[in-house]
Amino acid sequence: MTTPFVAVLMGSDSDLPIMQTTLDTLKSFEIPFEAKVTSAHRTPAATHAYVTDAEARGCKVFICAAGLAAHLAGAVAGITTRPVIGVPIDNGPLQGHDALLSTVMMPGGVPVATVAIGKAGAKNAGYLAAQILGVGSDALAEQVKLERAKSAEAVQAKDAALQAKLAQ
Amino acid sequence: MTTPFVAVLMGSDSDLPIMQTTLDTLKSFEIPFEAKVTSAHRTPAATHAYVTDAEARGCKVFICAAGLAAHLAGAVAGITTRPVIGVPIDNGPLQGHDALLSTVMMPGGVPVATVAIGKAGAKNAGYLAAQILGVGSDALAEQVKLERAKSAEAVQAKDAALQAKLAQ
Amino acid sequence: MTTPFVAVLMGSDSDLPIMQTTLDTLKSFEIPFEAKVTSAHRTPAATHAYVTDAEARGCKVFICAAGLAAHLAGAVAGITTRPVIGVPIDNGPLQGHDALLSTVMMPGGVPVATVAIGKAGAKNAGYLAAQILGVGSDALAEQVKLERAKSAEAVQAKDAALQAKLAQ
Amino acid sequence: MTTPFVAVLMGSDSDLPIMQTTLDTLKSFEIPFEAKVTSAHRTPAATHAYVTDAEARGCKVFICAAGLAAHLAGAVAGITTRPVIGVPIDNGPLQGHDALLSTVMMPGGVPVATVAIGKAGAKNAGYLAAQILGVGSDALAEQVKLERAKSAEAVQAKDAALQAKLAQ
Amino acid sequence: MTTPFVAVLMGSDSDLPIMQTTLDTLKSFEIPFEAKVTSAHRTPAATHAYVTDAEARGCKVFICAAGLAAHLAGAVAGITTRPVIGVPIDNGPLQGHDALLSTVMMPGGVPVATVAIGKAGAKNAGYLAAQILGVGSDALAEQVKLERAKSAEAVQAKDAALQAKLAQ
Amino acid sequence: MTTPFVAVLMGSDSDLPIMQTTLDTLKSFEIPFEAKVTSAHRTPAATHAYVTDAEARGCKVFICAAGLAAHLAGAVAGITTRPVIGVPIDNGPLQGHDALLSTVMMPGGVPVATVAIGKAGAKNAGYLAAQILGVGSDALAEQVKLERAKSAEAVQAKDAALQAKLAQ
Amino acid sequence: MTTPFVAVLMGSDSDLPIMQTTLDTLKSFEIPFEAKVTSAHRTPAATHAYVTDAEARGCKVFICAAGLAAHLAGAVAGITTRPVIGVPIDNGPLQGHDALLSTVMMPGGVPVATVAIGKAGAKNAGYLAAQILGVGSDALAEQVKLERAKSAEAVQAKDAALQAKLAQ
Amino acid sequence: MTTPFVAVLMGSDSDLPIMQTTLDTLKSFEIPFEAKVTSAHRTPAATHAYVTDAEARGCKVFICAAGLAAHLAGAVAGITTRPVIGVPIDNGPLQGHDALLSTVMMPGGVPVATVAIGKAGAKNAGYLAAQILGVGSDALAEQVKLERAKSAEAVQAKDAALQAKLAQ
Repeated sequence: MTTPFVAVLMGSDSDLPIMQTTLDTLKSFEIPFEAKVTSAHRTPAATHAYVTDAEARGCKVFICAAGLAAHLAGAVAGITTRPVIGVPIDNGPLQGHDALLSTVMMPGGVPVATVAIGKAGAKNAGYLAAQILGVGSDALAEQVKLERAKSAEAVQAKDAALQAKLAQ
Repeated sequence: MTTPFVAVLMGSDSDLPIMQTTLDTLKSFEIPFEAKVTSAHRTPAATHAYVTDAEARGCKVFICAAGLAAHLAGAVAGITTRPVIGVPIDNGPLQGHDALLSTVMMPGGVPVATVAIGKAGAKNAGYLAAQILGVGSDALAEQVKLERAKSAEAVQAKDAALQAKLAQ
Repeated sequence: MTTPFVAVLMGSDSDLPIMQTTLDTLKSFEIPFEAKVTSAHRTPAATHAYVTDAEARGCKVFICAAGLAAHLAGAVAGITTRPVIGVPIDNGPLQGHDALLSTVMMPGGVPVATVAIGKAGAKNAGYLAAQILGVGSDALAEQVKLERAKSAEAVQAKDAALQAKLAQ
Repeated sequence: MTTPFVAVLMGSDSDLPIMQTTLDTLKSFEIPFEAKVTSAHRTPAATHAYVTDAEARGCKVFICAAGLAAHLAGAVAGITTRPVIGVPIDNGPLQGHDALLSTVMMPGGVPVATVAIGKAGAKNAGYLAAQILGVGSDALAEQVKLERAKSAEAVQAKDAALQAKLAQ
Repeated sequence: MTTPFVAVLMGSDSDLPIMQTTLDTLKSFEIPFEAKVTSAHRTPAATHAYVTDAEARGCKVFICAAGLAAHLAGAVAGITTRPVIGVPIDNGPLQGHDALLSTVMMPGGVPVATVAIGKAGAKNAGYLAAQILGVGSDALAEQVKLERAKSAEAVQAKDAALQAKLAQ
Repeated sequence: MTTPFVAVLMGSDSDLPIMQTTLDTLKSFEIPFEAKVTSAHRTPAATHAYVTDAEARGCKVFICAAGLAAHLAGAVAGITTRPVIGVPIDNGPLQGHDALLSTVMMPGGVPVATVAIGKAGAKNAGYLAAQILGVGSDALAEQVKLERAKSAEAVQAKDAALQAKLAQ
Repeated sequence: MTTPFVAVLMGSDSDLPIMQTTLDTLKSFEIPFEAKVTSAHRTPAATHAYVTDAEARGCKVFICAAGLAAHLAGAVAGITTRPVIGVPIDNGPLQGHDALLSTVMMPGGVPVATVAIGKAGAKNAGYLAAQILGVGSDALAEQVKLERAKSAEAVQAKDAALQAKLAQ
Repeated sequence: MTTPFVAVLMGSDSDLPIMQTTLDTLKSFEIPFEAKVTSAHRTPAATHAYVTDAEARGCKVFICAAGLAAHLAGAVAGITTRPVIGVPIDNGPLQGHDALLSTVMMPGGVPVATVAIGKAGAKNAGYLAAQILGVGSDALAEQVKLERAKSAEAVQAKDAALQAKLAQ
């Protein structure tokens, strides 16, 4: 029997500093994951082999990060029918606008669940994977709810700090 | 016990012609769904009440469509921790570019799984919902695979037609 | 009886360095204000509670600042019918272009009075609040006129400095 | 004594079909208004004379609509210190994107309260003027609340129609 | 021995009306070609098989046309090391701006020779293929020169018509 | 009798570092000029008075630089019928894209001769003023030709340096 | 001796419907002109020959219109040192945004006096040419002033019509 | 008899740091090349003379790099009928978006094979030139294949490093 996990693919190891946030988010939800540097264009065969194998081994969600003409998420979405989350990376002169459009504007029948460009998106990719897996796991769904509540508390703590500052 | 379903929310009934594609896609996968016209801005309380109630009644995925400063998906993502899919609608002077950015650029912790602007995105929203529900249902996952295979056949049929035309 | 005041809401405390300009502008006009960190997505209930309460306590103008898919101003505009001023913040990879469109492109019936992205907008939000309150207060309207005259003098002083420099 | 009113300025009579929505909105709130075709560039003296005179006669809010390099709102904001609402018009090849930036990106000290491009903005300009005047008039503030409630009912009626359609 | 030819790939048969211009241009240079409807996402295996086979059978230049998140040219460029020409198609709400960025912003090592969006690009794809094949064929290079001269004559004929019209 | 001169207007003294290039270019052509800090919005009356007076005193070309919603050139073009050159300044979050559209998209009958955003435009504003004045002065037209020749020599010197470097 | 005239160059005869406005404007000022279809890319030699010859024959201002990667104005500006006015044409999928940037973003030393995209720009090109020639001709400068006054009257007539309509 | 070579043209020597990548790529394939600083606008005659001469001496591919209103590639494409590769340089306020559109949106009949903005494009220009020359040279085509294989190995080495890091 396979263990469900999330696969995090990056087009380049230069995407790792941003995508570490994804890995950290998955860890915080105790979701098993694999991370891999693989390229839609330079190693298409390796990408195909990995995705096919990962799906067979129980990968339930793919997260793909790439910059420029970011094809990785779309390419993976063409190989698997598991949900694919795309993170556009802002590492080029157009600041991720190209990566956003290359990731989100997928034709009918091959969706990529696209999140925000860069760091916010990297966090949300892990969070969205947890939400998706939570559809089939009440325990995980509960954890996501708790994390949201903690995030609300963090906002309120920041507000308390602002009130203290303004009261000085 | 609740029956799992998908909720399809639209900011305006003028979005229905495009969002009919989402409903048709969900029907083709035999996924139960509800559709609702509700506005993030004009009926925020009704939106809040519906989303909370729907989640309690077993809604597992929300699909939200809106144009212009498209806040509906983000607003719903702030109410529920179930996956929220956002469809940017191209019904204003900026052709959906505003709706895309308003939908996808969500801050960390509150993701919206954004699909393409307009018709392609409307189809993909239904398809992505099927993929997400398929994580917990092997039968549905299998159906998605079949649909992908049929879509590949459609491309090949179009190619055959082209070859016939070129051979004349 | 309530005392009229302005409420300044920020989606994140990281917006404070820019929004301090708003607070300073309100202070310079001796307009009572409250400032609050609250999020349209992470703390929607707290946002709703605060806005409703503030309106009841005499808040006449809301100023809302947010970056990325900046929904805060629109969300507040859906709760209150008092004028809402939106300040798009340039803290992401798209330099506030996303925040501008998310703030300004509001659907009919729920306006957000949008000012410029970033620092210039932060100052103008305070200034516009003074103008709005000045509609009902001749004294405040007079103060705005004086401030404009001072601003004109500042331009003329800069011109005098340029003339002196060119004359060397 | 002067009667408070709103002045609606258009750069060209070709803006009237869109700006009629503003006039209709003001009428629905029974707000006295004047409408005028005047150009920031072709008739700057007439614009200046009108704005100065209107302010003296009791104009409390100016609404300015223009397309292309839409300077009218900014020009009026430089003449008066009353609140100025800008409506970017989408009548050129760039679909109002130029008008939006020309209207909203005002420097510090001279705000323009900018609303959405085109028809939605035209409606919201009238609505925002009502909100601003409502700061000093409880009766008008109440009317705005009623209008919002009616708008919510309209959304709910559309939803009811959708439910009826889906139930067939 | 293989006969050199050009392969023209389209993501959808809806691209054919525009891409007919490419086929016509290739015909005008008497360059053998094959045309095929194949999708980077819906039929990735068929695309891979065709490209590998075509290269083995003597295909020297690939021309790929796609709209939206146009990945076809990039995907083909990842399979073959023959020159790949990309034609961004303007069939979606963003008028080909998305297709342009998805086609041209390729990472180092996997170039796509991108031409203009739409009809002008479709013609130029055929013309560029002729120029590339002309590097190894003096006869074809000569034909391209002749075609350029004819194109210059066409401009001059249009100018003559203008002069005649102005002289009336 | 009046002496012909060029007037260089800036919306803010923060534009001077860029606009110094304009002044230097005018000096290099020995063209008399005046420079002035004046604002379309903060000092419209002073702007109007200066432009009217300058035209009467023999100003033949106006050069206007501004950032953000750059209205200065358009405002001046509405006061004078002498040629007005606009320099969009890149001092805001949108990097001069807003200033470019606000300057160039002028309505029919009130042109602004717009040059490039920032430093290249600042130089070209001085150069274009020289070309315009050269229409009525053969001596100045000759100087512009000489400057162009020198600029060509500079390119060739840079090429010579490159050849030397490559030959090492 | 040469007679001063304006040369109007178009990259294609499909630009004539828009550029007719330029010709009409020049006619209205009784400015002699020549019009020519010539291409920066298809007929560079003819373009070069014409520009050199026209300058020798007394052409004082060049007006160049082109769409897409609109190089014509820049190419002409590299041949002559007379003022060159560029009109970006909106005849492609990007609606003239490409033509605007290709025309206005010229490097230092080779300015193109750029006007608005499309029809407004076509009128303004003729008007700007009149202003430039008016620097050396008081009679023409006077005519431009009269035309501006007439344009102001037209605005006021439109306003009168609006007032009549509103008074009904 | 002539020796085939590639000519690399730059609009300015400030483009050299980026274009060094092109030269290095050509060297790695042992492709003879010439590099030249020459401007479409400042030295059009020298550009014309060089391109004509280079073509006669056996230049088979031209690579042209320029920023801002990047006309160099288009100008060269109007002189020669050999393939022209354009590299948009991101050295201005619009980060190469202007250079991209000025390079790629060429009219029918005069293609520029455009690669990505900046560094990635500079590498790909050299790589694409190798692919084009490889159409006529099996040895070079083989070298390109080897380089692609090495590039795939580099991705796999980066992945191995990531796996090692994750395994710690």
